[in-house]
Amino acid sequence: MGRPRNADREANGDPREMILKSARAEVEKHGILGLRVAEVAANAHYSVSIIYRYFGDRDGLLAQVLGDLYEEILDRTAKRLVSSLPATGPLTVDQLLALAPKPSDAYTNPDLKLRLQILAVAATNPALEARLKTIAQARFKLLKEWSASTVARLPEGQVYDERIFFIVIVNQLLYYNTLLGDDAVTDDEYYQFLKDKVTKI
Amino acid sequence: MGRPRNADREANGDPREMILKSARAEVEKHGILGLRVAEVAANAHYSVSIIYRYFGDRDGLLAQVLGDLYEEILDRTAKRLVSSLPATGPLTVDQLLALAPKPSDAYTNPDLKLRLQILAVAATNPALEARLKTIAQARFKLLKEWSASTVARLPEGQVYDERIFFIVIVNQLLYYNTLLGDDAVTDDEYYQFLKDKVTKI
Repeated sequence: MGRPRNADREANGDPREMILKSARAEVEKHGILGLRVAEVAANAHYSVSIIYRYFGDRDGLLAQVLGDLYEEILDRTAKRLVSSLPATGPLTVDQLLALAPKPSDAYTNPDLKLRLQILAVAATNPALEARLKTIAQARFKLLKEWSASTVARLPEGQVYDERIFFIVIVNQLLYYNTLLGDDAVTDDEYYQFLKDKVTKI
Repeated sequence: MGRPRNADREANGDPREMILKSARAEVEKHGILGLRVAEVAANAHYSVSIIYRYFGDRDGLLAQVLGDLYEEILDRTAKRLVSSLPATGPLTVDQLLALAPKPSDAYTNPDLKLRLQILAVAATNPALEARLKTIAQARFKLLKEWSASTVARLPEGQVYDERIFFIVIVNQLLYYNTLLGDDAVTDDEYYQFLKDKVTKI
């Protein structure tokens, strides 16, 4: 399952990269849950046995493709967080809370459904789960450092309970909320809730 | 896709029920994400075309099987909630919070992974999503009634912010927490967090 050396490469490109590109296209077309190894092979112009040689099995291929996708989702999120705040100077609680995902994002932001599906696959794919653990723990460290540096820019004496981010928001998948009809929490209610909770300990 | 009338039944049982039973066995053996219609058909001793006749397509079959599973998960949860509390008499905040799923449940309770997978499938299966909406909204109504009746049994003047249940807990999928290693929130930390937040508004 290691990365192939140059000697393995064929004239028309690195098979490993071609297979990953084909798998990515399949995921984009049919969704994560419907990925078929035979289709990935056909579209990459390789045999299924080549896929098994590089990735072990379907789970190994999914671990690589979905792990990559997960990192990209987190990259987009991190970029959004950083670019949404002024680089220096004082901050308010409202500015920090505005960075939390909104309930309405679950209707419109495809990353939210992607994350849900990647986690669901990981729960039954040990190779993907292991990869996500590595990714999640590295990112969590960065999130803690970033949070500490932004909280330091709040007004002196401002109560700010970081557990709202580290416990609630990282574990919150707001897709379920979209099923609740009139009982779904609205963006305004959610924001008010977070504000109530983050400013008291 | 309607339920077949008696006239449709065969000597060895209702095909629809036999197919559902076979699909359920497949889900138990291979997990939700790997369900194959051909296997379901073979094990039920019917042809694939009979499955399509009763359920339309693979998504229709999944909508029925996973919708049923989801209802059963909620039934188990509701039963556990009701049986964990004395039927009458005063209650404490601690007794109510003890009903919330614990982070460690994500390592041990298979229902938590099942729920994650059912939601992931629903996000790309409109028939299942529609069914879950009906289920979720009916159950949410019951949850609100049950919550109101238990909160009424707390001591006079006790602050109790029901949003902790209606916003945080219903949307919290603690599987992600299991990926976080040393940064994962522990049961004690989670419980203390919920208590801090539920007793202040």
